[in-house]
Amino acid sequence: MRVAVVGAGVSGLTAAKCCLDEGLEPTCFEQSQDIGGAEHIEAGRPSLYPSVISNTSKEMSAFSDFPYPEDFPVFLPNARLLDYLRRYAERFGLWKHIKFETTVVSIQKRPDFATTGQWDVVTKMDRKRTSHVFDAVMVCSGNFYEPSLPLHCFPGIERFQGQYFHSRQYKHPDVFRGKRVLVVGMGNSGADIAVEASRVATKVQPPSHQGAWVLSRVFDHGYPWDMVFNTHLMSLIRNSLPGSLSWGLINYKVNQRFKHENYGLQPEKSPSALHSRVVREPVINDDLPSYILTGRITIKPSVKEFKDNSVVFYNCPEEEPIDIVIFCTGYNVSFPFLEEAVIKVENKHASLYKYVFPTHLQRPTLAVLGLIKPFGAIMPVTEMQARWVTRVFRGLCQLPPQSVMEKEVQEKSKNQVQWFGLSFDKVLKTDCLVYMNELASFIGAKPSVLGLLCRDPWLALTIFFGPCTPYQYRLRGPGHWEGARQAILTQWDRTLKPTRTRVPAGIPSPFPSLLTVVGFLLLMAALLLCFQ
Amino acid sequence: MRVAVVGAGVSGLTAAKCCLDEGLEPTCFEQSQDIGGAEHIEAGRPSLYPSVISNTSKEMSAFSDFPYPEDFPVFLPNARLLDYLRRYAERFGLWKHIKFETTVVSIQKRPDFATTGQWDVVTKMDRKRTSHVFDAVMVCSGNFYEPSLPLHCFPGIERFQGQYFHSRQYKHPDVFRGKRVLVVGMGNSGADIAVEASRVATKVQPPSHQGAWVLSRVFDHGYPWDMVFNTHLMSLIRNSLPGSLSWGLINYKVNQRFKHENYGLQPEKSPSALHSRVVREPVINDDLPSYILTGRITIKPSVKEFKDNSVVFYNCPEEEPIDIVIFCTGYNVSFPFLEEAVIKVENKHASLYKYVFPTHLQRPTLAVLGLIKPFGAIMPVTEMQARWVTRVFRGLCQLPPQSVMEKEVQEKSKNQVQWFGLSFDKVLKTDCLVYMNELASFIGAKPSVLGLLCRDPWLALTIFFGPCTPYQYRLRGPGHWEGARQAILTQWDRTLKPTRTRVPAGIPSPFPSLLTVVGFLLLMAALLLCFQ
Repeated sequence: MRVAVVGAGVSGLTAAKCCLDEGLEPTCFEQSQDIGGAEHIEAGRPSLYPSVISNTSKEMSAFSDFPYPEDFPVFLPNARLLDYLRRYAERFGLWKHIKFETTVVSIQKRPDFATTGQWDVVTKMDRKRTSHVFDAVMVCSGNFYEPSLPLHCFPGIERFQGQYFHSRQYKHPDVFRGKRVLVVGMGNSGADIAVEASRVATKVQPPSHQGAWVLSRVFDHGYPWDMVFNTHLMSLIRNSLPGSLSWGLINYKVNQRFKHENYGLQPEKSPSALHSRVVREPVINDDLPSYILTGRITIKPSVKEFKDNSVVFYNCPEEEPIDIVIFCTGYNVSFPFLEEAVIKVENKHASLYKYVFPTHLQRPTLAVLGLIKPFGAIMPVTEMQARWVTRVFRGLCQLPPQSVMEKEVQEKSKNQVQWFGLSFDKVLKTDCLVYMNELASFIGAKPSVLGLLCRDPWLALTIFFGPCTPYQYRLRGPGHWEGARQAILTQWDRTLKPTRTRVPAGIPSPFPSLLTVVGFLLLMAALLLCFQ
Repeated sequence: MRVAVVGAGVSGLTAAKCCLDEGLEPTCFEQSQDIGGAEHIEAGRPSLYPSVISNTSKEMSAFSDFPYPEDFPVFLPNARLLDYLRRYAERFGLWKHIKFETTVVSIQKRPDFATTGQWDVVTKMDRKRTSHVFDAVMVCSGNFYEPSLPLHCFPGIERFQGQYFHSRQYKHPDVFRGKRVLVVGMGNSGADIAVEASRVATKVQPPSHQGAWVLSRVFDHGYPWDMVFNTHLMSLIRNSLPGSLSWGLINYKVNQRFKHENYGLQPEKSPSALHSRVVREPVINDDLPSYILTGRITIKPSVKEFKDNSVVFYNCPEEEPIDIVIFCTGYNVSFPFLEEAVIKVENKHASLYKYVFPTHLQRPTLAVLGLIKPFGAIMPVTEMQARWVTRVFRGLCQLPPQSVMEKEVQEKSKNQVQWFGLSFDKVLKTDCLVYMNELASFIGAKPSVLGLLCRDPWLALTIFFGPCTPYQYRLRGPGHWEGARQAILTQWDRTLKPTRTRVPAGIPSPFPSLLTVVGFLLLMAALLLCFQ
């Protein structure tokens, strides 16, 4: 069974690897010369600025059977992430399945699609077009291709004399030197760019329409935020509590670091909110609070209009002179090589069952990977999607009937908020752990804490109370990995190794303190009561 | 009575102002062309890098009768601080008392010193020397003149082929571009420079001999660290608790943000420590933890030796290649214009009563300002010193007998640790609030919380529970200021104003929450019980 994989980024690589695991034959088409996101700007290609650093920790962002080397930093700069991807491609023999500098021009159902499920794939290399027939297609082209620049939302932008551009064009803070900068859009890249700009600019003013929860990578007691936040226990608590209580808890927690209200960042409750547990996707940024407190960045209300050389904000009488505007307004979902009949993109939201399968194809032989924006690492999620997809391709997993899938997609799309082309699940409940568990249960790889509790209690406790690292999904089922147990038990060792580079004399380092031991015993007692 | 003031930095300006307040006639000699610290490097002059940002918040660092404008950021970049100093000089008519580009060459006792207390002061301007006679001298030349570069502590530095220099020479991170950098000395400037360097360097490795507590400007719930830490209540708690408990409390608090042990920063208990409440001066840095976690900075054990192009650390087998070494090893205390008989600098520690008066002069007509390194803002401390000193000069305050002063200085010097030319009070007890209160009580300006409790209970509570802002020392006594009460009651308004730049709709902002009200009532009850 031959599978076309479009793109050799994070999703494409793991898609190819999962194909090989399931005995399928992948061909991966990558339009650039190398794997991973390219660093230069070209139309129709993803683009990253070189200084970008991953928002999720290495243990939480690993592919589930390939932990990061222990000396890698806990949060990875772009270059180290590429290094990891290269090692992954090397280890699992992916290189020979990738065709570089080859663009996928079109993907169309073959005339006999209803019986064979096959696709006609046309690719282009050096202006030479080639036609292929594939039994299945995995679309891994990412969603950072087509910038969303909603200029119509900004009255007066046409008369603005200064420079303006989309964050996709951004590579280096030097463009901001000595300038007065307006950063529109307070997502992750907006916050990153505001911080970088403020080191060289005269003035940086990101207006914030809705505010944002800002989390630091350095979380409670200095542990990586996602290793504290994304545990089975925390997920259980978040999803069992009533909405307002859960919201209150998060509200309290995020304001512990700094009171968002005092920093001009308090999120507004959206007027269209159905219930109180509405949150925007939090922004991960270590620097923003201190940059605001030291006056390097000033948060502003949203933009009312642009004038020749200035901007007017809501509720502010005076105009602010501005030299450069950078729009960090995200990307549109787009599949230029697919007919609209295959994937319907409506209101910037693609109608896909579990964010993966088009609902109305006669045969499930096309899947989209990595289109979800999880509140956590994308790599394990997209890998889990690939594992499920390859099982579906092989016929070992069944999709529900079309009507069921369509109903679910419609439900989901109701719960989306639209803002500057970014769409979020409004409801906190859809956290990435719940999603991972769901897909894992489809293929029979979901870890069973209760089952393990008798056989391997230490492992069970580590899984339940500890960070939900991806190795947990390799303990059983198809794709079972011998090293998974060991990888789970050593996850903290690999996390602490790169920063514990100086051990002061006289301090016996790796032993738990009395407090930890007592806390652990209490937790064990709680667990026992829980499962009684 | 004519007073010579040496230097027109922070200390010099407030010294001149306090002279005017007390009817003395100051002449301020400043060797550069402007007030404040100069930004260019010249031998014998203080030097700052332009990106430096104050470590203490504006409300805590104000001169006590001159609050910062409310739109100034909470922590001030160098340029805004200079702006404030200019406004201060303007407001109190100091300009005409400052002689710029005039260097003090020598200060000597006049022959009739024992009766008159007068000094011969020789200055130089455009190579022309002038002699003056002054009734008193205030030495405000700062302690950032003579860099301390203890090369003998670093075996092999003479064969090191790369570049090395003292932090005094540092102006811009560009020198580190693409280089492997070793930052020696983890004080405030060491940490700042490591962070700046890591944005352009390939690798930054600060070795840390003793470790350090690292605090963020953004403290609990985002309030400025010093406004939370330096309150009368906290000072009372710190100084009433038994040593080990107090140390444990601080240990717990500073590790809440991040576990120093996991970041290679856990301070060692010094072997010479007399008791357990030994702490090193904490480092104020917002960025260090996240820069370590993202691998941009790697803390190392202390340096064993240098080789041609590399460095060897203790407990590390392999050598680390290094291109540049920057020594952030502080400054020596030095008074080149004074005879050694006037101020004895021993073991890098000047023997001064309350860090101000030489103990063995027949007449107390010479004082040194700003030589203390408080754990807090220097400006209010040096201003308080100046207020005391001018009262002593006028004979309205008496110093104790020489023997008493000498005994106290000897006691203090025993409690100092020496490390790379920086000397710290080892004992936490000498916190700057205790010191301020002591000097204030000498001149009768110490605020009386108990006395105020009946007359003005709201003010009394604000003083006791709130941040110890300098305005409190202008409520009574000499130098009493009408605006002090109002300045204290509006201190939080001025703090929140520059960052509360966007108020989300539907949130009634400045009203205290129910929790705050309940907490406040509880505190009031506690206070009543305390003073029963």
